[in-house]
Amino acid sequence: MTDPADGSNDNRSSMWGGRFRAGPAEAMERFNACLEDDKRLAMEDVAGSIAHARMLARQDILSGDESDLIVDGLARVREEIVSGAFVWKPALEDVHMNVEGRLRELIGEVAGKLHTGRSRNDQVATDIRLWTRASLHRIEEALKDAQRAFLSQAKGHEESVMPGFTHLQIAQPISYAQWCLAYVEMLGRDASRMADACARLNESPLGAAALAGTPHPIDRPSTAEALHFDRPMRNSLDAVSARDFCLEAVAAASICATHLSRLAEELVIFATPQFGYIKQSDAYSTGSSIMPQKRNPDAAELLRGKAGMVAGAFVALTVATKGLPLAYSKDLQETKRPLMDALDGLEECLEIAARMVETMTPNTEAMARDAGEGFATATDVADMLAQAGMPFRDAHHVVGALVALCEDEGCKLHELPLAKAQSVSPAVSQEMLDGLTPLASLKRRTSEGGTSPESARAQIVWWRERLG
Amino acid sequence: MTDPADGSNDNRSSMWGGRFRAGPAEAMERFNACLEDDKRLAMEDVAGSIAHARMLARQDILSGDESDLIVDGLARVREEIVSGAFVWKPALEDVHMNVEGRLRELIGEVAGKLHTGRSRNDQVATDIRLWTRASLHRIEEALKDAQRAFLSQAKGHEESVMPGFTHLQIAQPISYAQWCLAYVEMLGRDASRMADACARLNESPLGAAALAGTPHPIDRPSTAEALHFDRPMRNSLDAVSARDFCLEAVAAASICATHLSRLAEELVIFATPQFGYIKQSDAYSTGSSIMPQKRNPDAAELLRGKAGMVAGAFVALTVATKGLPLAYSKDLQETKRPLMDALDGLEECLEIAARMVETMTPNTEAMARDAGEGFATATDVADMLAQAGMPFRDAHHVVGALVALCEDEGCKLHELPLAKAQSVSPAVSQEMLDGLTPLASLKRRTSEGGTSPESARAQIVWWRERLG
Amino acid sequence: MTDPADGSNDNRSSMWGGRFRAGPAEAMERFNACLEDDKRLAMEDVAGSIAHARMLARQDILSGDESDLIVDGLARVREEIVSGAFVWKPALEDVHMNVEGRLRELIGEVAGKLHTGRSRNDQVATDIRLWTRASLHRIEEALKDAQRAFLSQAKGHEESVMPGFTHLQIAQPISYAQWCLAYVEMLGRDASRMADACARLNESPLGAAALAGTPHPIDRPSTAEALHFDRPMRNSLDAVSARDFCLEAVAAASICATHLSRLAEELVIFATPQFGYIKQSDAYSTGSSIMPQKRNPDAAELLRGKAGMVAGAFVALTVATKGLPLAYSKDLQETKRPLMDALDGLEECLEIAARMVETMTPNTEAMARDAGEGFATATDVADMLAQAGMPFRDAHHVVGALVALCEDEGCKLHELPLAKAQSVSPAVSQEMLDGLTPLASLKRRTSEGGTSPESARAQIVWWRERLG
Amino acid sequence: MTDPADGSNDNRSSMWGGRFRAGPAEAMERFNACLEDDKRLAMEDVAGSIAHARMLARQDILSGDESDLIVDGLARVREEIVSGAFVWKPALEDVHMNVEGRLRELIGEVAGKLHTGRSRNDQVATDIRLWTRASLHRIEEALKDAQRAFLSQAKGHEESVMPGFTHLQIAQPISYAQWCLAYVEMLGRDASRMADACARLNESPLGAAALAGTPHPIDRPSTAEALHFDRPMRNSLDAVSARDFCLEAVAAASICATHLSRLAEELVIFATPQFGYIKQSDAYSTGSSIMPQKRNPDAAELLRGKAGMVAGAFVALTVATKGLPLAYSKDLQETKRPLMDALDGLEECLEIAARMVETMTPNTEAMARDAGEGFATATDVADMLAQAGMPFRDAHHVVGALVALCEDEGCKLHELPLAKAQSVSPAVSQEMLDGLTPLASLKRRTSEGGTSPESARAQIVWWRERLG
Repeated sequence: MTDPADGSNDNRSSMWGGRFRAGPAEAMERFNACLEDDKRLAMEDVAGSIAHARMLARQDILSGDESDLIVDGLARVREEIVSGAFVWKPALEDVHMNVEGRLRELIGEVAGKLHTGRSRNDQVATDIRLWTRASLHRIEEALKDAQRAFLSQAKGHEESVMPGFTHLQIAQPISYAQWCLAYVEMLGRDASRMADACARLNESPLGAAALAGTPHPIDRPSTAEALHFDRPMRNSLDAVSARDFCLEAVAAASICATHLSRLAEELVIFATPQFGYIKQSDAYSTGSSIMPQKRNPDAAELLRGKAGMVAGAFVALTVATKGLPLAYSKDLQETKRPLMDALDGLEECLEIAARMVETMTPNTEAMARDAGEGFATATDVADMLAQAGMPFRDAHHVVGALVALCEDEGCKLHELPLAKAQSVSPAVSQEMLDGLTPLASLKRRTSEGGTSPESARAQIVWWRERLG
Repeated sequence: MTDPADGSNDNRSSMWGGRFRAGPAEAMERFNACLEDDKRLAMEDVAGSIAHARMLARQDILSGDESDLIVDGLARVREEIVSGAFVWKPALEDVHMNVEGRLRELIGEVAGKLHTGRSRNDQVATDIRLWTRASLHRIEEALKDAQRAFLSQAKGHEESVMPGFTHLQIAQPISYAQWCLAYVEMLGRDASRMADACARLNESPLGAAALAGTPHPIDRPSTAEALHFDRPMRNSLDAVSARDFCLEAVAAASICATHLSRLAEELVIFATPQFGYIKQSDAYSTGSSIMPQKRNPDAAELLRGKAGMVAGAFVALTVATKGLPLAYSKDLQETKRPLMDALDGLEECLEIAARMVETMTPNTEAMARDAGEGFATATDVADMLAQAGMPFRDAHHVVGALVALCEDEGCKLHELPLAKAQSVSPAVSQEMLDGLTPLASLKRRTSEGGTSPESARAQIVWWRERLG
Repeated sequence: MTDPADGSNDNRSSMWGGRFRAGPAEAMERFNACLEDDKRLAMEDVAGSIAHARMLARQDILSGDESDLIVDGLARVREEIVSGAFVWKPALEDVHMNVEGRLRELIGEVAGKLHTGRSRNDQVATDIRLWTRASLHRIEEALKDAQRAFLSQAKGHEESVMPGFTHLQIAQPISYAQWCLAYVEMLGRDASRMADACARLNESPLGAAALAGTPHPIDRPSTAEALHFDRPMRNSLDAVSARDFCLEAVAAASICATHLSRLAEELVIFATPQFGYIKQSDAYSTGSSIMPQKRNPDAAELLRGKAGMVAGAFVALTVATKGLPLAYSKDLQETKRPLMDALDGLEECLEIAARMVETMTPNTEAMARDAGEGFATATDVADMLAQAGMPFRDAHHVVGALVALCEDEGCKLHELPLAKAQSVSPAVSQEMLDGLTPLASLKRRTSEGGTSPESARAQIVWWRERLG
Repeated sequence: MTDPADGSNDNRSSMWGGRFRAGPAEAMERFNACLEDDKRLAMEDVAGSIAHARMLARQDILSGDESDLIVDGLARVREEIVSGAFVWKPALEDVHMNVEGRLRELIGEVAGKLHTGRSRNDQVATDIRLWTRASLHRIEEALKDAQRAFLSQAKGHEESVMPGFTHLQIAQPISYAQWCLAYVEMLGRDASRMADACARLNESPLGAAALAGTPHPIDRPSTAEALHFDRPMRNSLDAVSARDFCLEAVAAASICATHLSRLAEELVIFATPQFGYIKQSDAYSTGSSIMPQKRNPDAAELLRGKAGMVAGAFVALTVATKGLPLAYSKDLQETKRPLMDALDGLEECLEIAARMVETMTPNTEAMARDAGEGFATATDVADMLAQAGMPFRDAHHVVGALVALCEDEGCKLHELPLAKAQSVSPAVSQEMLDGLTPLASLKRRTSEGGTSPESARAQIVWWRERLG
């Protein structure tokens, strides 16, 4: 039965037109419409209705025959939607009225019984939760796929040195594997956030009706179970008013998009001829007809730019729901578009990121060249002298003097002749000097999670076990 | 001539596909596409090209015949677009390539000469400026229309009392006209912001080419004039990099949307039966089939909710352009959608707001009822006693005692018997008591811009002269 | 040993001043300073250093004596900070240098050994995680406290009727308890989000050093355990670069603040004389000297307004970290203020909200008055007729006619004489009419989570068990 | 006289404490306080009061003696504030009550007359407008100063070639002057936005009183003039409710901060050894004790990061004012902090940016080296051949072949032997080849606003005339 409390969702021309002297203005009809967004909820809407119809029969609210008729009708509606044969009617405003309207055409007046014990308010809340859950699941998979792309890049590069940066200045040598694995970590936390958001939203609003529950003897746990929700929501007023799950999903998406923007930034910089660390594959970059070496990192730039759309969606949702009284207000219609744009957009970004990462080629030579620049291993000398027992202040003084010597000689630390080095301090040994290549530095940093090859290998193993 | 520096805009399959071993991945092609947004720039793109072609002929860069051929061809392209006959090709990525591609089909190889002395970088900057300018002009008109709607509501209600609120508590009586005129002011400032944004963006990037200008002897002032720009932009690098005009237009739109949200909030509250100040017309509200008095203020709620979308667009633009190096980067593609959504959305909001306001009916009885509540004129007593020479502290004390008396008697201030009032203070006169009706209070507030009827009338006259 | 790779954190005057011709400009020194924010990290910084020093001794990197000296010194530093005796030196820029500087004054050169195997990059990351964890714990407690305040309001009001709203229009009767319990749910999800954020951030960056790990044989699991982290972070580069935990904590805070803004909005409206549902206590509202009934809901308005600050902080963090290359960049300094302002601000909001809710008084009479308005139980008639077997369309028609009759008679549905009602349809019974009071409607809505008294009681029991 | 309608601003303990059984809770007092923000409004508050007091005397509302007493007293209050002797009392909540309270201590009860015909609502609106106007003026000056810094960098570098980038890939040669001048343009538009915002807000709310105007015969134009406002605001309700001027000022600030973030990004990249285009002065970078070449661009990074704070402030303001009913609500208190933080923060950023730019040194050698890379002048060949009459398609083909030849030969375009070049096409001349150096390319781009030296010189002259 149509719940009149949610009048805003009524099919106004037929249902309350009689009492209203004038129908809605044409401009208002367009303004009011949400059919384009709602079409994306069609599968969820049908699934929710089927679960509801079956429950009504189990509870003897509908007869078995009525329920079967309705479920069969809904299955036909679903087929029409999937095949594209379904004719969407803008005058019916939303997905719920379109589905129910078509059901009525197919099976007649019994279609009206489907609405017993529910309202469009709990229906739309159910649909959006189902949609968001499915979207988050896909994003989790896309995140794992992107993690695998980084793992495949890391594999075999545990000893490929590249500069680690602070302030975009060369700081210390790291391995290319370690760089890749940093992003595996970030994406892993993103996936975990998606999972948490999913678990928290996975409660069923169905049966909250307009806002107060219903006098019909419905069985909310059974529809919840049929729709793979963990349980019914505990409070009917909250069930139809809550949209924090949208905000949480989009916040998680925005954080993930910010991670992708950091990756993108590095790739844009690494793709310059001045750095030259990474060559993007043809498929994820564009070129110039007459400047053959040009390889614009379009995919990376788009990834970086799209962080804006997702963050904007979080703000749109926050502003739209700020200060909204309970329960349903029409403002909530404005939550569907930002939610869907943000999650769909992020999913696409992740797919692109995975392929882009998978197909890019590190230029280990260029990386190695820079890893040895800028006395990046100067800290290693100090560490070694300290480990050999030299007091901190002295060790530090020695390093400064050695670097000054290198500058005079125009050489790197590990190229310094031992005699010259020992003229600064006899504590310097050839073994120490030999240990000042980027690779030697790398190998020494064996602390847990550090950049040593065994640490990188351990990280790869850990993730392989979890990602397959 | 196609400027190869803006390779990202090249028709990649034909132009640099030869050097790239692989074409873009299919997923990447979708990710990269911006055709849906770009279609909205079609008229601007053709207009820019016509202006450019005519200038090339005047400068003897093209022959008159070549230019005529191109201009005629572009006119046909425009007709096709307007009529819907134009076939958009996703493979051509953007509006520029689609227009040029179709031009080539229509007039042959000479179409290629159109691109002499320009690049897709200055072309897209020109298109977006033209689009934004036209949009802001329409918004300015819509703002004026909404102002007129408020003026028509105000007219005749200069003496209709309603409560003025602070903290949503009844504070002092005002007139319904004064309330309407407050929104006329806000929208007036919004219009002035749009005009400023328009004036600032109205400079031509055309001729900046890829970023460095061009060696061809082009005449930038003449194309600027033809496109009704005030002047060419002064620096070619800035011309193709700048998107602050998008941010400014959307910021102005967001501020305006925030104004509309304040209006909407008041209307939603005023439309409750508890307040009952405003009856929305049937066209801008929805009802319930069996709850006849229900009148949901859908239009107002949507206006309120859409403030989110516009604010979100500003954030999207800010995040997308934050930290972008000069000149063109692909991230800039992500600025088109938020710009267009925000401005188109605001324009629609203003149209709805104007009609909604125009057709709503104030319930002057309900307003008058509340205007007299809560001792809203208590401050008037204090003012009158002070004007009669009573020291401030004493006056204040008297008012407190009078109000206490009213509470005991269960009457309003102006209903207090003179004798009782004078038992509090002999300074109280019958004239004073008579002056404590909401209307009398209203009439006394004759300070410039105050709520007195003559002040409201003066405001109406001032605005009528400007709005027609 | 000081890790020179994080030069930005060096004590510049003494450490690299010698190589720099000029020191920082005075304006730059102010611009660069973060001491005000950093002071709030002092306890965390000392705790991290103590854990590090003890581990260094266990690993034989320091002698036991050295470690004891350092730990004792740090304890004294902590006491000085707590007592206010500590002298903060702006020239030392940040909390790390201030603490270490003072330690050196207290215990001499051995203080320098504390920095062995760590860097200011992992140190600041550790401090902020510890601070955020403690803050989120306090927020979780404050959320529970606010939930308890709502439970205490709900208790005993399971049969107190009030209108449930859609579009701020009276829709169906609910109980005041059900309204309170809706907020218990929202705050419960907020607490669960805080707990998830806490669990995810609870990994130790300590030992990641500048970004690459360290050659010293440190024991990261032991410092992680000492600081009650669940484990060390797996990748050193990620450990010093990651700030997604800040974004997540602030996003959760912003969602919670949006919930509070919905509550605040309702309370502001309910506090108007037109509604009059809730009376704020004196402690959480302000009045007027001569308008005695005025009771401005200041606390609620501030709660509503502060949603802006928290949402703004999320945007500030997103913009600041968007497109940042790994690892440490100075931009990250800009993440501390928004994080701290948002979390501290939310904590204060929750404390105020709890007290405000606890001390407010529902006006059950005013609520009951409105709950019976607007034929709010019209849907009940339709439900009852349908349950009695009447086809949907007919039932609906009957309700419409009954309502029209009531409008003519000027009475409510349950006040309709049976004879008149049966003239519309003989299916209407006196029992049905009797069942149309708000309270009867309430009691009928026994579906799980619905507004019936037993449902409300069950919810209260469920939460009491969890909240104590 | 204190206007009781703005009770929220009353000194609650003394003024309405009597009617309230309990005073505000201590936590609520802290929550409610805004004194820290308000202190920044002290000079504006005093100035507004002096203008008001003088007007009251001119209008015979106060006697000349009373007015003199008040004005003298306010002058003493101002002196105390400036000297630091003023004792701020948190219990008095805001700046208005603190100033008036101290005035009363200094001159006695006559201080109370100052409040005749005004309210704290118009007073705070006036103060914030005055504060914002002054802040925007300072920002305009800071913008001009930053422009001058870029002009001083540009001067003399009209022929210093550097690469112009698209997608951060080398695209075409430009001059360092042209690069500097692009930022002069951006900052010029920023200044123009500040000026517009200033002009629009420069209307006086004073005399709007609580919201309805006042019955006292005040002269609003005269106080407006005394405070250098252009005119009184036209509508009293709007005057106390409007905060769009805050939003506009912060939006302009955010756009400017985004410009600075683009500059900062380029400088961070240009400061890497891989690029090496710019050397930051010691004063605006930090180094490392033992890595002497390290020069972290801290100032640039902070500039980049602070774009977050300013954008966040716009969102904070938008969320706080979204959906606020007229007139004053306590939520508006939450607009002061973001406004002040954003404008103060931007002003500091501009000062730092100016000094940083002024003192940085371009490495023209490194720029020139890269400007010749990547066949950056390939488009020039096509342009030259086209100008010589060769059809577009052919010209393009020739360029492709020439570039391929260069790749085989390992030389740049202008280094190609004429004979080899003519083997591709006899249309190629030695003059053409000679014209393919970056500098020659630069000089050829003589289109208005292009990168040619004369264009840069013209831009410098244009700006020098305006900036002095």
